[in-house]
Amino acid sequence: MQEAYKQALLAYQDKEIPVGAVVVCRNKIIARAYNQTEKLHDVTAHAEMLAITAAANHLHAKYLTQCTLYVTLEPCLMCAGALAWAQLDRVVFGAKDAKRGFSLVPSKILHPKTKITSGIMAQESEALLQQFFRNLRN
Amino acid sequence: MQEAYKQALLAYQDKEIPVGAVVVCRNKIIARAYNQTEKLHDVTAHAEMLAITAAANHLHAKYLTQCTLYVTLEPCLMCAGALAWAQLDRVVFGAKDAKRGFSLVPSKILHPKTKITSGIMAQESEALLQQFFRNLRN
Repeated sequence: MQEAYKQALLAYQDKEIPVGAVVVCRNKIIARAYNQTEKLHDVTAHAEMLAITAAANHLHAKYLTQCTLYVTLEPCLMCAGALAWAQLDRVVFGAKDAKRGFSLVPSKILHPKTKITSGIMAQESEALLQQFFRNLRN
Repeated sequence: MQEAYKQALLAYQDKEIPVGAVVVCRNKIIARAYNQTEKLHDVTAHAEMLAITAAANHLHAKYLTQCTLYVTLEPCLMCAGALAWAQLDRVVFGAKDAKRGFSLVPSKILHPKTKITSGIMAQESEALLQQFFRNLRN
């Protein structure tokens, strides 16, 4: 998660909403990404989406069944839908997203085999987001 | 929707699950795409995702508030989540997706301002999908 947090810091430096993600497969980071919705003018360019696309490119495989995605913020519905398609082994996220998090929907979104862990480096990840939005308002 | 269906036919020819999409803005098609999950080894490469990314590139704008997306199959949750972020004016889809369609989730997924129309060219779109899966089994 520290590597995902470093990606979030890169997003922060780039004036993007600071969310970072990495994909780990067999103890190796195979993809790193951060949110680039502003730079790319693309609402789909969330850290998770870019990370799973990069991981799939790396593996030349659509399914990431032996991979773990670490992301600093709870995935939104779009990202959770993508993670479901990718059939990840595990998803670990940091801060909760009380407005847009996928867990707000009362249905199972992720793949039934995907394990979920939350709250890892949640405070740092949330503090970074709060700082970003504080800067934006000033 | 006929243009979206043409895109689905291109997917069919490419041995991809035949779903096509176009984005229309001010009476002009600004993006056309079809599902490319196999070719790109990428579960996020659904027709809708590629179409809204292409439309946003065309407009140099993240939000597609004056645009209509036509897609031959009901969007999945990932795509519906993306369409929500893109704040489309209207989404028109063809066939219902009884297994993966976003309307299976009992929550409002799309943006509150997005109008939805369904069932346009549903029969042709569904027949094409059925033919694809029949070929796959044989």
